[in-house]
Amino acid sequence: MINISEIAQQAATAAKGLIKLSAEQKNTILNEMAAKLREQQDAILSANKTDVEQARDNGLDAAMIDRLMLTPERIDDMANGLETVAGLDEVVGRERLIGQRPNGLEIKKKTVPLGVICMIYEARPNVTADAAGLCFKSGNAVILRGGKECLNSSLAIAAVMQSVLRQHQVAEAAISVIPDPDRKIVTEMLTLDNWIDLVIPRGGEGLIRYVTKNSQIPVIQHYKGVCHLYVDKAADFDKALSILVNGKTQRPGVCNALEGLLVHKAVAADFLPLAAKALTERGVTLHGCAQTQSFVHDVNLLSESEFGQEYLSLDIAIRVVDDIDQAMAHISKFGSNHTEVICSEDEVAAEVFKHMVDASVVMVNASSRFSDGSELGLGAEIGIATTKLHAYGPMGIESLTTEKYLVCGTGQVRG
Amino acid sequence: MINISEIAQQAATAAKGLIKLSAEQKNTILNEMAAKLREQQDAILSANKTDVEQARDNGLDAAMIDRLMLTPERIDDMANGLETVAGLDEVVGRERLIGQRPNGLEIKKKTVPLGVICMIYEARPNVTADAAGLCFKSGNAVILRGGKECLNSSLAIAAVMQSVLRQHQVAEAAISVIPDPDRKIVTEMLTLDNWIDLVIPRGGEGLIRYVTKNSQIPVIQHYKGVCHLYVDKAADFDKALSILVNGKTQRPGVCNALEGLLVHKAVAADFLPLAAKALTERGVTLHGCAQTQSFVHDVNLLSESEFGQEYLSLDIAIRVVDDIDQAMAHISKFGSNHTEVICSEDEVAAEVFKHMVDASVVMVNASSRFSDGSELGLGAEIGIATTKLHAYGPMGIESLTTEKYLVCGTGQVRG
Repeated sequence: MINISEIAQQAATAAKGLIKLSAEQKNTILNEMAAKLREQQDAILSANKTDVEQARDNGLDAAMIDRLMLTPERIDDMANGLETVAGLDEVVGRERLIGQRPNGLEIKKKTVPLGVICMIYEARPNVTADAAGLCFKSGNAVILRGGKECLNSSLAIAAVMQSVLRQHQVAEAAISVIPDPDRKIVTEMLTLDNWIDLVIPRGGEGLIRYVTKNSQIPVIQHYKGVCHLYVDKAADFDKALSILVNGKTQRPGVCNALEGLLVHKAVAADFLPLAAKALTERGVTLHGCAQTQSFVHDVNLLSESEFGQEYLSLDIAIRVVDDIDQAMAHISKFGSNHTEVICSEDEVAAEVFKHMVDASVVMVNASSRFSDGSELGLGAEIGIATTKLHAYGPMGIESLTTEKYLVCGTGQVRG
Repeated sequence: MINISEIAQQAATAAKGLIKLSAEQKNTILNEMAAKLREQQDAILSANKTDVEQARDNGLDAAMIDRLMLTPERIDDMANGLETVAGLDEVVGRERLIGQRPNGLEIKKKTVPLGVICMIYEARPNVTADAAGLCFKSGNAVILRGGKECLNSSLAIAAVMQSVLRQHQVAEAAISVIPDPDRKIVTEMLTLDNWIDLVIPRGGEGLIRYVTKNSQIPVIQHYKGVCHLYVDKAADFDKALSILVNGKTQRPGVCNALEGLLVHKAVAADFLPLAAKALTERGVTLHGCAQTQSFVHDVNLLSESEFGQEYLSLDIAIRVVDDIDQAMAHISKFGSNHTEVICSEDEVAAEVFKHMVDASVVMVNASSRFSDGSELGLGAEIGIATTKLHAYGPMGIESLTTEKYLVCGTGQVRG
């Protein structure tokens, strides 16, 4: 078994060196990494071929093999991604004034990298380059642990990126791939809080629970997306219908797709038939409460405990509610703190919803599908947090930094 | 054994209600709590008397009994503390604009409470009122678990605060004291990440390690304070001496006291004798490297591995360094990410130190003793974090909030 403690220590040492790099140096390195990924395409494709063949031998399904497979175009996409990251604003070293104390001390805060970040993800080789690029840009060392099926590809991609680090006298350990797929290594790694500052698992709920349970290192958790649209009595039906259809059908398998529709009883008789038509035309299966059934045919009755499912498919759970309070109570009970949407032209209702609903993204008259780092203007997304510590919601590279205090004086002492 | 899961669930339910309270309502409640603490002083003193008598019977030392004991003045201090918290700026519901997207979506962030916070602390009844006040002000429910020696006092204080909550139709479970000192309850509580959002342990390193190891809930860690003063070759000796004396001797038993002195070799011959005189006059025992011994008598030689101690006493570890890089390397190796100070009139050296040193508070020409929430102007301090996730350094009540995204549109959908 490899020595994960040594990998983590080397990453921590490398992280200390990254604070010395200027924004320009980091961006040059990222752009060179992009160029070199394109240049070394054959080596990467060859490693990927080994992974894909093994995956086929092991009987992986077509969707998994598709995610695993690299092509020249996909390598170019990874390179483009690194160039985009190089073009993002610098997030390290930003200072802001907090205040001046009566004794003359000047108090500021300044952004600093977190240190060492461990990314645990599925068998998607492109995440190797993406995550490494985002961590490097934000001054963090990264330890990458992708699904075992993509190990050869990840090692090949990381080797290219490390070769650029070497050329610039940056410690290669700033980007490490765990070269052994043994799960015991992950379990051991999760105890190394002396060296690793943050773990970001991307994958199913089981993985995230496993990591949380076993980690002594802080974990960014993204459990699931059970997003609702609440159609208020003051909703504009055209907006509501397009937001509903977009949220449910544009890409049903992702976490910011709609899973629930709540409709104010005052508009249910008018809105629900339109909604049902628009959804069923696009192949959506309707589930809902007894009241929903009274307005729309072909609705599968849901018992109370059957609400709150993350379908990730062309299914939706519909409930007629008495008022906004009941809508918010439903969201509080069944939502996943991911994204919740109100459709209303009533500013008071929108304000109440925005203030009261506990979700990482609360939207008014917009599709839940915008709940995404690049759609929100964060430049790139390293993950999305549905728990509240450190980050809540889509995380840009700013989330990979923290702030230290700077205190400047002229010899002040405490009385 | 009490049902901690039920306590946690009730706290979570209570937390959801707190978001409805306006700043004015919260401040009224806090002020009434303060008044009622003074009014109910006899009941609190009587409960405290039981605690103190038990502590004496169990042979607790005088310092612990002193921390445990309440007096009318100390109750008044607690009440004053709540009034101060009532006077702090509101931290919940603050909105800031992130940007407008090309499609017209307006992106904001808005502060929200974390939810349920668990405070674990030593036998200091005043922390019960302080922590409850800070959590309530920031819209969080709190579960309080003080040292078993102060349980009766804590229950009496919380009962007074809860009675005010009741009068205002706020769920009492917003402030809960765990009524059973069994440690197993804490261990079980640390698994309740469905209900509790943050654990803040205050106490020795052993307690914090225990909580971190056993918690599935995020933990704010404050391991220790090994703070250094680096006296640069461009230091003003008067400033350096007063910062040194203040940092080491004003209150040696606290985490922001100085434990180490690093002196640039170019000024060591001049500075160290002055420093040694000032320190030894105040009863400080000097420890240091061989070079230090060559400039000053009566220095206990330290081996490399003996640096980095958290003395919490009138002891200091001194090292002569070749340059600022060596000083920073020493800090990187032996510091605790708490507070690090440079004394220098050279702006370039100060900038390098501020940028490079990884500590939650980095100071220039000021005493480490200012590394404290109220001294930095945070109004009050709920704790200090020496790890980087969520909070780094002294934590004001802002640290008990997070931000959600608000997205406002006019019917936008994703293409």
